[in-house]
Formats: sequence, C-alpha cells, structure tokens
Amino acid sequence: MPLMQFHLIEGRSPEQLQQLLDTAHDAMVEAFGVPYRDRYQAVTQHKQGELILQDTGLGYERSNDVVLLSVVSRPRSQEQKLKLYQMMSDKLHEQCGLAKDDLMISLVENSDSDWSFGQGKAEFITGDL
Amino acid sequence: MPLMQFHLIEGRSPEQLQQLLDTAHDAMVEAFGVPYRDRYQAVTQHKQGELILQDTGLGYERSNDVVLLSVVSRPRSQEQKLKLYQMMSDKLHEQCGLAKDDLMISLVENSDSDWSFGQGKAEFITGDL
Amino acid sequence: MPLMQFHLIEGRSPEQLQQLLDTAHDAMVEAFGVPYRDRYQAVTQHKQGELILQDTGLGYERSNDVVLLSVVSRPRSQEQKLKLYQMMSDKLHEQCGLAKDDLMISLVENSDSDWSFGQGKAEFITGDL
Repeated sequence: MPLMQFHLIEGRSPEQLQQLLDTAHDAMVEAFGVPYRDRYQAVTQHKQGELILQDTGLGYERSNDVVLLSVVSRPRSQEQKLKLYQMMSDKLHEQCGLAKDDLMISLVENSDSDWSFGQGKAEFITGDL
Repeated sequence: MPLMQFHLIEGRSPEQLQQLLDTAHDAMVEAFGVPYRDRYQAVTQHKQGELILQDTGLGYERSNDVVLLSVVSRPRSQEQKLKLYQMMSDKLHEQCGLAKDDLMISLVENSDSDWSFGQGKAEFITGDL
Repeated sequence: MPLMQFHLIEGRSPEQLQQLLDTAHDAMVEAFGVPYRDRYQAVTQHKQGELILQDTGLGYERSNDVVLLSVVSRPRSQEQKLKLYQMMSDKLHEQCGLAKDDLMISLVENSDSDWSFGQGKAEFITGDL
C-alpha cells in the first residue's frame, strides 16, 4: 500500500528507470515488511528548472540524478521510517549508482479507511487485507 | 475542496479524459456532498513503465486503462469514504467503461486551515465558506 | 523542508517559471521562517483540460495562468498558514503579475520523522537539523 511518487529530472533510460523502481520497491518491502505485490509507484519526469532540491544548509551536493521520493503510507513507527531511509539510500546507491546526496524522501501518513485498491472496496476495512 | 489528482497511462483522447473527470466529479459531489463548483482536478499522464500498480495479492487484474486517484480532503467519516470508493468505481464503470479492477484510490486528510482557494484567504477560517 | 508542488497549464517561458519559483520561495521563507536553502520545489505542467480549478461558488475567475500549489510541511500554526497564503498571493501578484484569483493553495502536515534530506538520514531526528 505505500504509494511511492518519484520526481526526477529527465535523462534516464527506460532500463535505468525500471531498475530504480525495482530497487526502491525492494527497499520498501524490506523496511516496512509489506507483501511483494504491494507495489504502487508513479514517476514524474521534470525538465531542468522544474525540480529544485536544495539542502537546508546540510551540505549535500545535488546532481541532475537527484530523486525526490514522496511516500503515502498507513502509520509507521519511527524505527520503520529510519530503516526505510537508510535502506533506500543504501540500495539505490549500490544497485543504481545513485549518490547518497541525491535522494530526498518525504512521507505522509493516512489511515486504514483511506485506501481502496480496486472494486470500490476499502480492503483494510472489509477484512480483505 | 477535495483535491483530486489522477495518474494515468497515456492513450486516452481528450474527450475520454474529459468524461473521466466529469464522472469522477459527479461521484465526489454525491459521495461527499460538496457544492457543484467545488471541483479541483489535476491529471498526470505517464508513459508505460512510469506507473506501476500491482494488487497486494488481492487478485485484481490491471490493464493499461488503470487509474490512480489521489484525494486530499478535510476529514470525512468512514461511511463517506466507503461511499466515495463505491460510487467512484460504479460511475466510472458505467459512464466510462473503466473496469472495476482498474481503479485505485488513496486519500489524505488535512484540516480547515489548510486551504486557500483564492485572494490569499483561508476561506474556511474567514467564514467565506 | 516544506515541499512545494506546483501545478500549472503549459505556456510559461523558462524565465517566467523561474521567477514564479523564486518568488514563491521568498514568500515561504518569510511566512514560515525557514532557512534560505530550505527550498524544495517541483513543477508539473498540464495540457489544457488536465487542470480544472473551479471556485466552490466563491466568485473567483480563473485564467489559464492559474496555479495550484500543494505544500507538505511539519505542523504550522494557523497564524503561520494565514500569513503564507497572504504573502504568496501578494508576492506572486506583485513580482509575477499573477492575478489573486489565480492562486489556490492546499497544505498537508506531517511530522519530524517524515523527512530525509539526504544520506539516508532523518535529520530532524538525528539532530542534524
């Protein structure tokens, strides 16, 4: 169920994009312990000048590979969130060569009644999930 | 006020898109009881490979027509949400031919002070709404 | 840290877009008191028919210049939010010529553990911020 929205600057090949999404999903599965087919990802590719990610003075150096990942999820413990950030950073670095300065994550929580996966049902409420 | 963001795979005609948005708005008006001109919709069309919506093992079969609908709203009762999911699914199926397996909805709630519709005002706070 | 997502209809020049983003950032810095390099902005440009923003009967007249601004932030006081709406409206009008009827803002709050700016860290939790 976590919904992952990726914002990138144009320039990756379809193969690079697919590897990015596959790897991010693996990190999600491991960090939040969701089922393997609990995969919901959308990518928006921006032109230069349409995606500005600075660093709040933290000293991070962003390149054109920078990734903004916006996640919507049911509530998660702080421990799970920290694990997600670390695994996402590590795996995207190892599998996709993404610099650790080039990943920013923002999370928003909602609740069980806020999801309908199909058929007009709220599966967390009906007991289907 | 509910803000509706649609994520689709490219391929619909402008007429098909308009009918999708009109129908989704009708479902919203009926389910949440909002005014008819309380309509705020944005569509992002994705290339193949930029929108991945699986099924958490629920057995839904997604086609290229799949729609991800992300809604931001003031708090709503569980009853209203369930009604929204059902009406959205039914109406998009009946009016637009969208398969009931091809609609996923994710909702996020905010509060009265989180909206400014124009003129720099917070209309729910000022009493304009 | 506030994440600002802009939804526009196509047609602005790169220079106009840059001025819009610069000005919106200035308003954010002043209203929420964030550091100057606390700047995180993404723009999605929509074709005609992909962005529908009506007025809930408030009487606002929207043009093709209309801007939907979606903000994700740590909790803010109502006073800060009202200031943000007013400053954003005023500055975009003065600096960019945006009509005050052409700006709609929607805000969603999250919490300290919901942000990772880089290096897989949650900087509000680690004490880096």
